[in-house]
Amino acid sequence: MTAHGTVSSKRPSMAIREDRLWQRHVEMAKLGATAKGGVNRQALSAEDIAARRLLASWAGARGFTVTTDPIGNVFVRRAGSEADAEPVMTGSHMDSQPTGGRFDGIYGVLAGFEALEALEDAGIATRRPVEVVAWMNEEGSRFPVGAMGSAVYAGRLALDKALAVADPKGVTVASALAETLAALPLPGVKLGGKVAAYVEAHIEQGPRLEAEGRTIGVVTAIQGSRRYAVEVVGEEAHAGTTPRAARKDALSSAVGIVTALEKLMDDPTDTVRFTVGRFEVFPGSPNTVPGRVYFTIDFRHPEIAVLDERGGRIAAVAAAHARGCAVSVTPLTDVPPCVFAPRIIDLVRDSAARLGLPHMDMPSGAGHDAMHIATLCPAGMIFVPCLRGISHNEAESATPADLAAGARVLADVLGALADR
Amino acid sequence: MTAHGTVSSKRPSMAIREDRLWQRHVEMAKLGATAKGGVNRQALSAEDIAARRLLASWAGARGFTVTTDPIGNVFVRRAGSEADAEPVMTGSHMDSQPTGGRFDGIYGVLAGFEALEALEDAGIATRRPVEVVAWMNEEGSRFPVGAMGSAVYAGRLALDKALAVADPKGVTVASALAETLAALPLPGVKLGGKVAAYVEAHIEQGPRLEAEGRTIGVVTAIQGSRRYAVEVVGEEAHAGTTPRAARKDALSSAVGIVTALEKLMDDPTDTVRFTVGRFEVFPGSPNTVPGRVYFTIDFRHPEIAVLDERGGRIAAVAAAHARGCAVSVTPLTDVPPCVFAPRIIDLVRDSAARLGLPHMDMPSGAGHDAMHIATLCPAGMIFVPCLRGISHNEAESATPADLAAGARVLADVLGALADR
Repeated sequence: MTAHGTVSSKRPSMAIREDRLWQRHVEMAKLGATAKGGVNRQALSAEDIAARRLLASWAGARGFTVTTDPIGNVFVRRAGSEADAEPVMTGSHMDSQPTGGRFDGIYGVLAGFEALEALEDAGIATRRPVEVVAWMNEEGSRFPVGAMGSAVYAGRLALDKALAVADPKGVTVASALAETLAALPLPGVKLGGKVAAYVEAHIEQGPRLEAEGRTIGVVTAIQGSRRYAVEVVGEEAHAGTTPRAARKDALSSAVGIVTALEKLMDDPTDTVRFTVGRFEVFPGSPNTVPGRVYFTIDFRHPEIAVLDERGGRIAAVAAAHARGCAVSVTPLTDVPPCVFAPRIIDLVRDSAARLGLPHMDMPSGAGHDAMHIATLCPAGMIFVPCLRGISHNEAESATPADLAAGARVLADVLGALADR
Repeated sequence: MTAHGTVSSKRPSMAIREDRLWQRHVEMAKLGATAKGGVNRQALSAEDIAARRLLASWAGARGFTVTTDPIGNVFVRRAGSEADAEPVMTGSHMDSQPTGGRFDGIYGVLAGFEALEALEDAGIATRRPVEVVAWMNEEGSRFPVGAMGSAVYAGRLALDKALAVADPKGVTVASALAETLAALPLPGVKLGGKVAAYVEAHIEQGPRLEAEGRTIGVVTAIQGSRRYAVEVVGEEAHAGTTPRAARKDALSSAVGIVTALEKLMDDPTDTVRFTVGRFEVFPGSPNTVPGRVYFTIDFRHPEIAVLDERGGRIAAVAAAHARGCAVSVTPLTDVPPCVFAPRIIDLVRDSAARLGLPHMDMPSGAGHDAMHIATLCPAGMIFVPCLRGISHNEAESATPADLAAGARVLADVLGALADR
């Protein structure tokens, strides 16, 4: 056994190639590259289509099959020895935030692909097929429902509802998906095939692994998250002539509401995650009193009781600070906390230990596609460190060695699962 | 003398045609018409060019000359009997807010043009030329310096500085102006020719005339106004993983700053006008902690002492609520309060009285091009009512009869000034 080999004594030696994995990251980072070194590769954009084309070309070169389902998830399959066996699945997403980094999502796809290539390089025949999936629209930044592709796959979001979601320009998922498929035709598969097990690799997107000097995060759970849209409707008026008493100022109302919500979400333990990330003011002219504000709330916590109690008070708090405007609060998504399967958690921990990689158990602060797939089959995740925990930021950074270490654990776990 | 005639006994009878004036408003409202009955005809846009072309075609049909100056103001001149006499000038602007109304600005241009046509119809020769001007970019909504064309004309804003102002897409005034002139070539004139007197007609954009049942507002002054840009720079971060203590949340900071500024601007007499009209959040993704916010402050008051005292505290109040972000406050414009010339005020008041029109003296809450031209020559304004005082709003409304009444007073006053 070498540092680059896996520890399973039952199979031929399988080698992760750190250089190849890094080079694939470099190639993908060109698609939607930003001036500040990040990527802007939003779901079903031209850049996303280019990423799909690149992945498909790599898969074709290795003889893997590439398919897509009705919500635009892409599957790369390496066949198993039992044709009818349910596949073991790994993957993540290729879409990014508008000012996103080079590793969030794409790492899980490329680490999975490296595992497939390592199996292929070593000539290992697995009983089950092993599939790498690129889930559609995990970020939810263009189409405002995150983890959309995996939610539809798991039956937690209706296909029709997902297809009807529109981006800020009014383009629906259905329309963008049709364009994507026209640009890159792929054989279609049915929605939601059965899965034997699912393991997703991802950068941590938080500071803990780096702070504690560990290479592998053994992910035990994902905190729950809820998203809301708030619309405040007042009345446009002239900034110079309209007395305050006669105004229905949507910006002033929205500022009061956000202030009150920050108070509602106040938490001495700093466990609550409360974010207003999109905040749009109309018409947006310096000398016009704003007539309308639209903003989003992202609210997360590991405990469902906290999500229920504070989440349930958002609408009343918003209404109490309307200042003469009409306020509506619309729940967009509600993802309960997710606890991963003990046997997958154990496999990841054992593999890291046998490979001699410093590791720790930890929950995930971010949501991931794994939270939906965990409702279908035993699931788990593997985290690797990222610089200063910075993510959803063009400055996102990770080292080739850490990325390869995570891929090594992933390949090991997938190999074990594929022979069960 | 009839209700449609003027009262001057020194000149032949001059008739304002209410139907013609209304029809010209209907034609102009088609250029940039919005679904809700308003207009979006921002400075130097395709719609603004169409409005310039229409005005020029009407002017050509009556034998008036049309010229433009280096900042894109458009002048329609009816010659006087003394070729070298300084002209009497009237006018306003043709650009609108992004969701603007059908009367703000364009009324002053069309009322002035109706006055020119009434003089022409009646065959009246005036001593001085009478000019109708359409000032460029009064609204400042696309290019964020309001009353730009008149400020440059009056020498209160340097031409080079104005030409360098860019819209949110990065298009400069210089570039948009070159496109405008290419689309509609007009003979050029030098900047800032001398003016004998200036009178501007405008809808009130406030509720007082309607509330008090008056048709004509005799405008005595314009309150002063200052505009500022505030930029808050924090750090983008993942909404699910980043603890509050580790965040530099630009939205949270900006909300705190606006709240503190509202307190600074609090005024029991409701005379202070404080508006945050543009407020932009970047990157604007629901699950990313905002890294940057840009917002504008519009602050107005009739007294320069109040403008100085409270305006001077804005930067310190903003800095005190930075919450770990970097905050910069940039003054954009500073227009002192303007008091109009007593002899113009008297002429407007006397004309309204002689025409039997209910009238009242009043200051203007809104800024107007007249505030800049008042530094060059005796100046004044005429207000007519608008429904509920609603302006900078697609629902802006005024009656044909009130518009014609204002044009009648304007024609009367221009006629008197042009013979002095």
